[in-house]
Amino acid sequence: MAEASPALAIDVGGTKLAAAVVEPGGRLVTWAQVPTPRELAAEQLWRTLDALASRVLDEAGVAAPAGLAGVGAGCGGPMEWPAGVVSPLNIPAWRSFPLRARLRERFGHVPVRVQNDAICLVAAEHWRGAARGAGNVLGMVVSTGVGGGLILDSRLISGASGNAGHVGHVVVDPSTGPVCSCGGRGCLEAIARGPALVAWAQARGWREGQQGATAKDLADDGAQGHPVGIAAMRRAGRALGIAIASAACLCDLEVVPIGGGLSQAGSMLFGPLEETLRAHARLGFVRQLRVVPAALGRSAGLVGAAALILAGDRYWAGD
Amino acid sequence: MAEASPALAIDVGGTKLAAAVVEPGGRLVTWAQVPTPRELAAEQLWRTLDALASRVLDEAGVAAPAGLAGVGAGCGGPMEWPAGVVSPLNIPAWRSFPLRARLRERFGHVPVRVQNDAICLVAAEHWRGAARGAGNVLGMVVSTGVGGGLILDSRLISGASGNAGHVGHVVVDPSTGPVCSCGGRGCLEAIARGPALVAWAQARGWREGQQGATAKDLADDGAQGHPVGIAAMRRAGRALGIAIASAACLCDLEVVPIGGGLSQAGSMLFGPLEETLRAHARLGFVRQLRVVPAALGRSAGLVGAAALILAGDRYWAGD
Repeated sequence: MAEASPALAIDVGGTKLAAAVVEPGGRLVTWAQVPTPRELAAEQLWRTLDALASRVLDEAGVAAPAGLAGVGAGCGGPMEWPAGVVSPLNIPAWRSFPLRARLRERFGHVPVRVQNDAICLVAAEHWRGAARGAGNVLGMVVSTGVGGGLILDSRLISGASGNAGHVGHVVVDPSTGPVCSCGGRGCLEAIARGPALVAWAQARGWREGQQGATAKDLADDGAQGHPVGIAAMRRAGRALGIAIASAACLCDLEVVPIGGGLSQAGSMLFGPLEETLRAHARLGFVRQLRVVPAALGRSAGLVGAAALILAGDRYWAGD
Repeated sequence: MAEASPALAIDVGGTKLAAAVVEPGGRLVTWAQVPTPRELAAEQLWRTLDALASRVLDEAGVAAPAGLAGVGAGCGGPMEWPAGVVSPLNIPAWRSFPLRARLRERFGHVPVRVQNDAICLVAAEHWRGAARGAGNVLGMVVSTGVGGGLILDSRLISGASGNAGHVGHVVVDPSTGPVCSCGGRGCLEAIARGPALVAWAQARGWREGQQGATAKDLADDGAQGHPVGIAAMRRAGRALGIAIASAACLCDLEVVPIGGGLSQAGSMLFGPLEETLRAHARLGFVRQLRVVPAALGRSAGLVGAAALILAGDRYWAGD
């Protein structure tokens, strides 16, 4: 029965916590999400997640752990991998939180695997989404941060410490770019992450002084014709185009699916991105590259977390 | 006997043609090289290479093909891979030259494999050089061009078309960088390749108007204190540092061996490289990265070509 059993998938992000029961084929049977609590301590956050998992299992009528093929979890980085000790930048309550060990305590006896959420995205898009059938893929998430995961020669790449895919720290403007939260200058993330775009736009008069304005507001205003909104999307698109050109030359990629909130900005973002990419990626072999919106939308994180279990031969290289 | 047989290794570059008989352990038994003839037609160039191969085989007392484990060849790119149809940028006589097919005609009955010369370098450094024991390596050649090859998760990465590793076209200065021969702007190669450094220095008064001045002259003059020579090496080092920082974040690398003529410029080059790399590569996992001169020097190309045969399980993914 283990073969046909579903997986429990968990997605821990700075904006939301989500859980789902996922069929072997990748379909979500039940799912639920809550906004990530901001003010909770580490243990309370864990209990919120635990309750969410119990809810989707109950709704699916699955007895855990007996009825499960395993538990896969995606979480914001950085993390110690494959130990699954997580310190997600956007969740200050969890610093060196032993997520994998806690999930094992809770669910025991079935495989429990934790991976970077951006790596889950690329696994999902490769398994069931926009990169299906491609052997060389950079999956990107453009949101509060800019993350990614690499599949090369049809294998998920881990790298020396499980951190391969950090495309957000590819340098796109070393001379005049802003300082990044990593301490470097001109990283893609320092320019294209949502909050950086909002700050850039507010410094140019857009919703000046308004607290809580988001990159979605900025994209929406751009779509309505606001020149700063349009310019901000162009700025992000250009930075993405340069980083993707560099990654494509280095890794000989076929397809780059882009997910995350900003990827919903459409041609305002993807137009300048394509233009910049084509201006820089001129070698014959990189001209074939396709940049596409991620196909799985909001469920990608959960589908990818499930893939760690349900297609672990391809998407899990840890212990 | 096949297991203990040596390989014939061939290295086709814009500056020299080389051949060697290489023992299973990686030692060169016999080797020979000639300057790459500039004025010859395709067939004459082939005959020159053929004669060079015959010479090293004779000197080693090896009867080909019976006494050979196979024939491995490294050649400047681009090429159709794994077909081994080569069009090396710096050898105009060969355009779509079927190097692998011709070697097969000549040597038949043993494996014949052709790969990009920069990929041979990384194979050599991983097999017998400065990257031995590391699982995640970007090998670089900084010379007339800037090339590279990637080993990730202990496997040589091919990419979609066998072109993974083109670090020379990572974008390091998109706003003010020079136009590259690929048509892009601000590629690493456009700044750090030898002839580009020479042109940059001559525009600043160094050996102004002198025909045939080389990057080696420039490095030598820098070592003697010439300020333009020093500034040119710093310029190359910074560009290399930015590209390596980007590659390290994307691929989670452990070691970057650098070969090619410019890598012999020593601390004048590696000092600014390290400084720039450390300024940009700030995430915890990239701080461990080591950048080192390639250990195998001029024989790296031949050792790597031999590795395509003698350690083909690790360094050859083609047919």
